[in-house]
Amino acid sequence: MNEFQLIEKFFKQPKKNAILGIGDDAAIIPKNKKDCLLLSVDTLSIDSHFTKQSDPYYLGWKALAVNISDIVAMGGVPTFALLSLTVEDINKKWLSKFSQGIKACAKKYNVELIGGDTNRGSMSVSVTIIGDSPRKNVLTRSAANINDDIWISDEIGYAHLGFALSKHGPTMSNCLKKRALQAFLKPEPPMNFILDNKKYMHAAIDISDGLVSELEHISVEQKLGAKIDVDSIPMHKWFKEHNNQELALTGGEDYQILFTANKKNRNKINNSLKKNKLKGGVIGTITNSKKVEFEHKGKLVNYKKGGFKHFG
Amino acid sequence: MNEFQLIEKFFKQPKKNAILGIGDDAAIIPKNKKDCLLLSVDTLSIDSHFTKQSDPYYLGWKALAVNISDIVAMGGVPTFALLSLTVEDINKKWLSKFSQGIKACAKKYNVELIGGDTNRGSMSVSVTIIGDSPRKNVLTRSAANINDDIWISDEIGYAHLGFALSKHGPTMSNCLKKRALQAFLKPEPPMNFILDNKKYMHAAIDISDGLVSELEHISVEQKLGAKIDVDSIPMHKWFKEHNNQELALTGGEDYQILFTANKKNRNKINNSLKKNKLKGGVIGTITNSKKVEFEHKGKLVNYKKGGFKHFG
Repeated sequence: MNEFQLIEKFFKQPKKNAILGIGDDAAIIPKNKKDCLLLSVDTLSIDSHFTKQSDPYYLGWKALAVNISDIVAMGGVPTFALLSLTVEDINKKWLSKFSQGIKACAKKYNVELIGGDTNRGSMSVSVTIIGDSPRKNVLTRSAANINDDIWISDEIGYAHLGFALSKHGPTMSNCLKKRALQAFLKPEPPMNFILDNKKYMHAAIDISDGLVSELEHISVEQKLGAKIDVDSIPMHKWFKEHNNQELALTGGEDYQILFTANKKNRNKINNSLKKNKLKGGVIGTITNSKKVEFEHKGKLVNYKKGGFKHFG
Repeated sequence: MNEFQLIEKFFKQPKKNAILGIGDDAAIIPKNKKDCLLLSVDTLSIDSHFTKQSDPYYLGWKALAVNISDIVAMGGVPTFALLSLTVEDINKKWLSKFSQGIKACAKKYNVELIGGDTNRGSMSVSVTIIGDSPRKNVLTRSAANINDDIWISDEIGYAHLGFALSKHGPTMSNCLKKRALQAFLKPEPPMNFILDNKKYMHAAIDISDGLVSELEHISVEQKLGAKIDVDSIPMHKWFKEHNNQELALTGGEDYQILFTANKKNRNKINNSLKKNKLKGGVIGTITNSKKVEFEHKGKLVNYKKGGFKHFG
């Protein structure tokens, strides 16, 4: 049983006053007639998401960034955050660096830290994020149309390489190392690009759990299909040289956005990607096949649905 | 350094768009012209707040109830909650009972569970609560006036006795045992009483960290004082018989509300307490002494500020 099934089975209830409950990157509740609020929580736990050796600055950054990603994926503007921090003991140096990291990320995305709770225990960082969006154009994972282009907002796979580097590390150039560690330690959800282009987007989702896994959510789970051209998925040449595109497709923690849009908007979106210095692009098409098909060098290939699952 | 100083030192920043940031039971953000939203997060960690042997039903109940208490203390109506659950492995029986507990509490307080995140790691339960209140009468800890009556909404001390029982346990009647365990395992914040009487209330705070500690927050920290008549604090006769009122005054986890109100409203509030089957009452007066004074049998006594601090 994976995380999604777990939540679904035990905690999902019919929604009453919420606009959208459990099941997307963020929940949606009414704010006023025009606007709604988006809410999401993510916890990073020691030994599962980070280790005692992890740099507290980057942990602080990432704890907030992964939550911001949920709001960005829904087309919202992150506004406020609450932190619940559990630590084994008080290490002022650690706390100082951690708070610098979370504050730096808050500043970059103009998020206000409005609440906190600290506890003693096995270390974990839980952040709740609140975002704003007009009601009329929230992005959800369930809004793809047949024949939509499927897009990814930037190159993928770096975060998984960064994760591998933090453990043992395959050989790679220093330049790639730097980029991979940056992606793993200090993810920067592409907020401005999404806000500029949400008017063109249908479905959207962040690929925190890996591209293959998230493709299922926007297609098969919506009774649609997807046809993906693996060779067109933007990723560093390292993956191709090592014949290991699968790593980029299934490794999680890329806080980029997978979205769909009508083909007629391809130029506008491509121009905006360039303007935002993102190397994203079209990677496939929404179909009615009720499966995700990957074409690689002209042949259909299989990737395990995998992705990053806490309870795979 | 305790929890409050810790949050203050590292995470508090000047508020920008929030109405109230870090420093009260809940943060306040704008909703619409008339109303605001209250937000709070609390995490329960294994070995700090519960043990492996804790009944998952009550853990689920309590994880939500302690958050509801924060909203109630601000005079709000709890509306939505997000759960972030970290467990070491999937135990369906445990999860089923836990979800029954949290859903039962959600049902009692009409709260909708709208989001979730599950992780693998050392067990912890983090709940974020959202509440609603008209902007014009949110209750804060900083609104007491000199000569206000100081009230407590119900008898205190049961939860600490329940906690003691869960460990080793002093001798007491079966009836008291039951009441103490109920208070410790299944706290029920007095929402209806607070909503009915918030028009009379000035300052309010929940006494999750113990009465003595919370009295400081509403008086000394606001440059006011408090004079408390210990003999008038409602508690079970066990505490008096064992000459251990201090236990009731400093033990935490009583999710009752400490509030202040103008003396002229004493009858109305007392009547409402009776109507709500609460044994609360007036326990003292707000002064300008800048200290909390406890009078017991006609003499001034000292209680250590204590209360339940995670980093005492």
